[in-house]
Amino acid sequence: MKKEEVIYGLRAIIEAIEADKELNKVFLQKGLSGNLYKELEHLVRKKKINSSYVPIEKLNKLSKNNHQGAIALVSPVHFQEFTTLIEHVITTKDRPFLLLLDGVTDVRNFGAIIRTAECTGVDAIILAKTGAAPVNSDTIKTSAGAAFNVPITKVDHLKDAVYYLQGSNIQVIAATEKADESIYDLDFTAPIAILMGSEDKGISTSLLKLVNHKAKLPLLGSIGSLNVAVACGVTLYEAVRQRIS
Amino acid sequence: MKKEEVIYGLRAIIEAIEADKELNKVFLQKGLSGNLYKELEHLVRKKKINSSYVPIEKLNKLSKNNHQGAIALVSPVHFQEFTTLIEHVITTKDRPFLLLLDGVTDVRNFGAIIRTAECTGVDAIILAKTGAAPVNSDTIKTSAGAAFNVPITKVDHLKDAVYYLQGSNIQVIAATEKADESIYDLDFTAPIAILMGSEDKGISTSLLKLVNHKAKLPLLGSIGSLNVAVACGVTLYEAVRQRIS
Repeated sequence: MKKEEVIYGLRAIIEAIEADKELNKVFLQKGLSGNLYKELEHLVRKKKINSSYVPIEKLNKLSKNNHQGAIALVSPVHFQEFTTLIEHVITTKDRPFLLLLDGVTDVRNFGAIIRTAECTGVDAIILAKTGAAPVNSDTIKTSAGAAFNVPITKVDHLKDAVYYLQGSNIQVIAATEKADESIYDLDFTAPIAILMGSEDKGISTSLLKLVNHKAKLPLLGSIGSLNVAVACGVTLYEAVRQRIS
Repeated sequence: MKKEEVIYGLRAIIEAIEADKELNKVFLQKGLSGNLYKELEHLVRKKKINSSYVPIEKLNKLSKNNHQGAIALVSPVHFQEFTTLIEHVITTKDRPFLLLLDGVTDVRNFGAIIRTAECTGVDAIILAKTGAAPVNSDTIKTSAGAAFNVPITKVDHLKDAVYYLQGSNIQVIAATEKADESIYDLDFTAPIAILMGSEDKGISTSLLKLVNHKAKLPLLGSIGSLNVAVACGVTLYEAVRQRIS
């Protein structure tokens, strides 16, 4: 299992960000100042990198080296650039099959979803830069290594991704209980992107307004929803069923 | 959230077992002897209750009271008697829909499976008394409370359950990669019981020999298997799809 790499020191982290190294998170020591520190703070904000201000004790636990008040966790997987990836999918695949995740925050759910995406032949997973579970060593473990096989891309705003996909004739289908149609009434054989929401809030209202279709799973009991990894699996496999038959 | 109840003391636990109180686990202090202690050991073995021999420090952590070297965790849900439950399902349902779990050990997977079972209208979940994840407060939480809604029964041997179901004209369908047929080629509209295996070993070979059908999910990537809760969800929903259409 590839472990999360750690980078420490202000200058080293600034260099890593400027070299487009993918960071899962930057930990900054509370209450520090100084030019380099401010430069790093600015870069972290500008590039929308996940960050936290923490006491020095937390940093000392993460690295025994001279961290100068900043430690970064490097993503073990490489994220692809959105436009390049989508254009590649469009030009190489007859019927693109994409997955958009709006704020899945639980690492185990995220890992199981990546694993299912690999098993169902999803061409790419699209995440927002903020609010999503990180791709760390736990995610990779629960994905059974699939995180290395499925192309993953991060965008500033999922809205823009939805517009881009629709502009490329890819229909966006939201899996949500707030739907009139069942997944079994929908056509999944065209170029599609399936949109799944977060564990607690589902898909955000502003995104739901943009999608081409909303589809729900029949719920025969009294509990109103499924685990998101299970719901995602059922929806992706309905697409597989329709596409192979 | 209903928490796991704790019973302490040799006599109290013996009484609980004799009153058919459902225990998730009995912790016994290592190296003890005495008549009552031996009586409890004997009962635990006879009733196939999950148990562990632990140092006294572990017991002291579980209860501050005078535990006399034995502490039991009570199941927050009531397990039904197998034959009574199955006969009830057969007489009240047109097309029984059952779920057999062969050694799912992860509490979160188990919880997600119970949740999916509730959402797909499964009439009963059948487990083996040993080797399965416990129904504890974590299971209930990840099941979103579904553990209180879906009847669950435990049997000494799943083999006997399979024979009993088949004798009652219920077909047992194993979800396994070791299958020639796809789930999409099978008829799920008859009275059925779906059999899922454990996270690491799948379904045991001796059980696989007994089933009426083996069905696999198409796997389009290079990773050979899905998370068990996801695979279970996809299979149960294929039954739902066929039954509602």
